[in-house]
Amino acid sequence: MPVGKVVVVDTSSSPYAKLKPVPITQVELRDSFWAPRISSLLTDTLPHIYAQLNEKGYLDNFRRLVGKVQTNFKGYPFADEHVYKWLEATAWLLSYRPSKELLERVKEVIELIEAVQEPDGYINTRFYGKPKERYKKLDWSHELYVGGHLIQAAIACRRTNVCERLFNVALKYGKHLIENFGPGRIEIPDGHPEVEMALVELYRETRNKRYIELAEFLIDLRGRGKFNYLPYFVDNKPFKQLDEAPPGAHAVRFLYLVTGATDIYLEKGDRELWDALERLWLDIVRRKMYITGGVGARYAGESIGEAYELPNESAYAETCAAVANVMWNYRMLLATAEAKYADIMELTLYNGALSGISLDGRNFFYTNPLADRGKHRRQPWLHCPCCPPNIARLLASLPGYFYSTSNDGIWIHLYASNNASIYLNNNKVVVSQETMYPWDGYVKIKVKPEKEDVFAIYLRIPGWADQAEILVNGRPLELLPKPSSYVRVEREWRWDDSIELKIGMNIKLVASHPKVIANTGKVAIMRGPLVYCLEQIDNPGIDVWGIGISSESKLEAVYEPNLLKGVVSIVGEGFELTNNEQLYNALNKYVVKARKVLFKAIPYYAWANRDPGPMTVWIPLIDVFKKVRIER
Amino acid sequence: MPVGKVVVVDTSSSPYAKLKPVPITQVELRDSFWAPRISSLLTDTLPHIYAQLNEKGYLDNFRRLVGKVQTNFKGYPFADEHVYKWLEATAWLLSYRPSKELLERVKEVIELIEAVQEPDGYINTRFYGKPKERYKKLDWSHELYVGGHLIQAAIACRRTNVCERLFNVALKYGKHLIENFGPGRIEIPDGHPEVEMALVELYRETRNKRYIELAEFLIDLRGRGKFNYLPYFVDNKPFKQLDEAPPGAHAVRFLYLVTGATDIYLEKGDRELWDALERLWLDIVRRKMYITGGVGARYAGESIGEAYELPNESAYAETCAAVANVMWNYRMLLATAEAKYADIMELTLYNGALSGISLDGRNFFYTNPLADRGKHRRQPWLHCPCCPPNIARLLASLPGYFYSTSNDGIWIHLYASNNASIYLNNNKVVVSQETMYPWDGYVKIKVKPEKEDVFAIYLRIPGWADQAEILVNGRPLELLPKPSSYVRVEREWRWDDSIELKIGMNIKLVASHPKVIANTGKVAIMRGPLVYCLEQIDNPGIDVWGIGISSESKLEAVYEPNLLKGVVSIVGEGFELTNNEQLYNALNKYVVKARKVLFKAIPYYAWANRDPGPMTVWIPLIDVFKKVRIER
Repeated sequence: MPVGKVVVVDTSSSPYAKLKPVPITQVELRDSFWAPRISSLLTDTLPHIYAQLNEKGYLDNFRRLVGKVQTNFKGYPFADEHVYKWLEATAWLLSYRPSKELLERVKEVIELIEAVQEPDGYINTRFYGKPKERYKKLDWSHELYVGGHLIQAAIACRRTNVCERLFNVALKYGKHLIENFGPGRIEIPDGHPEVEMALVELYRETRNKRYIELAEFLIDLRGRGKFNYLPYFVDNKPFKQLDEAPPGAHAVRFLYLVTGATDIYLEKGDRELWDALERLWLDIVRRKMYITGGVGARYAGESIGEAYELPNESAYAETCAAVANVMWNYRMLLATAEAKYADIMELTLYNGALSGISLDGRNFFYTNPLADRGKHRRQPWLHCPCCPPNIARLLASLPGYFYSTSNDGIWIHLYASNNASIYLNNNKVVVSQETMYPWDGYVKIKVKPEKEDVFAIYLRIPGWADQAEILVNGRPLELLPKPSSYVRVEREWRWDDSIELKIGMNIKLVASHPKVIANTGKVAIMRGPLVYCLEQIDNPGIDVWGIGISSESKLEAVYEPNLLKGVVSIVGEGFELTNNEQLYNALNKYVVKARKVLFKAIPYYAWANRDPGPMTVWIPLIDVFKKVRIER
Repeated sequence: MPVGKVVVVDTSSSPYAKLKPVPITQVELRDSFWAPRISSLLTDTLPHIYAQLNEKGYLDNFRRLVGKVQTNFKGYPFADEHVYKWLEATAWLLSYRPSKELLERVKEVIELIEAVQEPDGYINTRFYGKPKERYKKLDWSHELYVGGHLIQAAIACRRTNVCERLFNVALKYGKHLIENFGPGRIEIPDGHPEVEMALVELYRETRNKRYIELAEFLIDLRGRGKFNYLPYFVDNKPFKQLDEAPPGAHAVRFLYLVTGATDIYLEKGDRELWDALERLWLDIVRRKMYITGGVGARYAGESIGEAYELPNESAYAETCAAVANVMWNYRMLLATAEAKYADIMELTLYNGALSGISLDGRNFFYTNPLADRGKHRRQPWLHCPCCPPNIARLLASLPGYFYSTSNDGIWIHLYASNNASIYLNNNKVVVSQETMYPWDGYVKIKVKPEKEDVFAIYLRIPGWADQAEILVNGRPLELLPKPSSYVRVEREWRWDDSIELKIGMNIKLVASHPKVIANTGKVAIMRGPLVYCLEQIDNPGIDVWGIGISSESKLEAVYEPNLLKGVVSIVGEGFELTNNEQLYNALNKYVVKARKVLFKAIPYYAWANRDPGPMTVWIPLIDVFKKVRIER
């Protein structure tokens, strides 16, 4: 296997990528936060998903076409994607966690896939043998969306050396796409973007320009009335003219679209495209994103709301949208090497995405509300099961998100105990981290270059950092690291040099922009990259929807190794807020009584793993309006 | 026409009704608030709905079955109900606002209905001629729901003397229901309650006990696994054991069910049933109702949320649910003569229900959010058009909601200028009101009994009243009327006696129970029965989602005859709240700047009748937490 090949997003030859990938296989996580999750992929999540694919008939959708079973097509028209995403996730995982059992299943599935490809390259079990139905309803058929996932699974299988054969299927399918879509051919994109990312990766894999040209073509088709200018499909305006994430846009469609567009930018460097991406990013991050990194305010159309429309109880914040937000910000980071993108990537990873999967790795959220009365529970499987294999492929490829390289050095994006072997200008540099991150901001990094050499190490200082200090071989650097930046430490690195990074990780109360009317008068608790929530089970006898805090409340971080597989909980002085029983009272009859209580908050990602009960992220701050400065 | 017959809910012989109805035809509204709405029913709403029924094919669903058109069935399986509800609304209206044109259409429609009734009494254009499909999918087929609306339309046509013939259709259908449903026959209710109300009314009309027995049977079937114990269908528990409106219950289904159950109580007086109704009422009013009287927090399943789950931007609060809330509380009032039910009836009528229809009477909301960024607009027709004819039938029958009688007197529930002729113990009493209500709390009532007699007049003192004073023939009564009560004024009434009711109608700031996390730190503005909102168009240059007020803000009520067909607007000192551009800030970087501005608020029902823009009911109160009393 060629070194440097098992990468999630292969920008190694992308002219507009500031950062190049470090292979998944070169980063060995051995921390207590992520490594157990990855082990659980092997023992729980991926076998569990496979069993569900079997049980729910998604694999039978393939088997029936080769006469192995007699049954009807099962599931949504895009049911094949569940299989492809499971395959992609499994391939990434197998590249560093071998499993004979999983590999056998992979091979079985790949044989099925091969068998159902039609002679002209088309592949889709829903439309198999119905050439007249193909591409007739591209708004809802998800044909290219499913095909995109096939391509991504095939590339993962190829890069990981799990199986080259599937790549031939993808190539044949890619050829079919080129023959059928483009100017003068079919000029309608898929209602659900995804294939754009896949086509760029296929271009990276083959250097066949027709793939990236097709991706560009599909992006440029939007906003030309193909879908009646509907914001749902992000068809309301040509992509490069978009000045906001259209309210009503399906969140996952929108985020897959911008992610694919960012992939195109990485190859082509189109300034107009970039300007649009930056505008859209600012619009999401400043107006339409939950504090968890979740995106999608509305159940109606699974869609993004208007600016500042961010209800908590009814937040949609689909797990797939959070996964997409991680993927998008990762690509924006690769394009720019700017820390603000890494901040959102990390925030979403630890909160809005990770909440999508249970601690046991076998239960999943589709929507991720920020407040609940106790009925929202993860399920072993979902009616629309796009999320389980999506969070699985993100976690399986996670080691690939930790590091990048540039010509002059090594970039560290994420922190967790790990050993990485990174190739930099014909030098092999072993970088290892020792840290309790995200529970603690102290990170000890060892640098072991095979050859002594001058290069830079870029250390990410998270946006949430209160302060940071860097010591090299025990001596503090004089610079004052700025939050949300990469600190460049250049020197001649020698075997066993050490860097100590001390990131101030205080408990923070965070308030929303005044226009976020769902959060008026409330704060969220954060510590490091983690958003906290109050869950009923930790606060017996007090309804957590009636707990307030004060900006002077004492808050304490407590590491609890036996709670929720080990978390830092936050214990603090709060107030049980009560009034009379009436739902609405005239203000002159409204005196909230605040009785002092102790409360405990836990990381948001870990909620709903114990007995059900109310939960809330945003907590009334009983003195919040002390913060109002009236200008006269 | 027998006097006293044109009544909406005929409790005149109901043994457990404290109050008896006053016919619609006996109450002539001549106020500036409701009377123009009713005129608009005649000139706009009902012709407009008829045109839509025609255009969208709902009438063709009937015509096709008698060979008049060739087309497929159009719309939802329950499409017939749109026709029946239009018919019911039109019948009520025709009883006091004759229109040759509308009457002709009514007759045409009734002929169509007659023609599609099957020999055994079954009637439903979706299932016509398909006896094997009947009652096979009662969870979703809406067959009894549609049938219930047929019965109600037929009763309205009969009571109003518009057409007796349709009543024969209803009788034949009723017979069919009795033959097919009941112990040992079909033992499944309709997934969508409605027929229960209709069956009780059919019992009232015929005194045939089998109808009310069937209604009871259908109520008692719930919670017996007919619908897999799903809360959506209110099937989670036997009705009489329900202790809350089940979270996840479809709001309209739930409210129609309790309304039908209240109808049964009015006839049978079952204590267990009443206890359940009271529990459910308290649960809705104290935990699950919007300040507008709207019910239904969730888009998912159009459903009721958990206790205190009342998001504003994504409030569902379907117009039909508000109409049902009016109908339910009216029946609870008839059962008890307790003012608390009249309070909710009035609140919902003026706010959550009335917002469902535009000022021009030709545009409709399906959902009624309490905050919006400017995209939520009423539509001339709705994909699921259950709401337009529902609000129409409520408005057309509204005169029937103003008065009731008991053995000892006349009850006044609602205030608006009107003349009513009320029969009380063989005496005819003309009661007239002169008032600017809801804009002003002064109501002058003239009482003109044909014969001088001792009886009581019960005056409703609304729950929102700050204080109230009553003068009889210019002399103040000594009693101090309590808000949310009926004041009994008994005397020998003589021709032209007068009552003056002075209800204090101040501008009120209203706060929510602390557990309503959507409304933390916020207040709503109310005046009289009306909930106010900030709409962008009245507040140029300031995003209304960023306006705060103080409890010391001066607020002034201004009658504006040319605004929104005449409203009292509220003008006040507010604050434009700003921070930096970030969506989330650590509290130590969070200083909200509050710049003094003037704002204008308008009644909630009238929003979205001008240029689109953001709107909000709940407004940050910048000193709200001064109201917190910390107990140490």
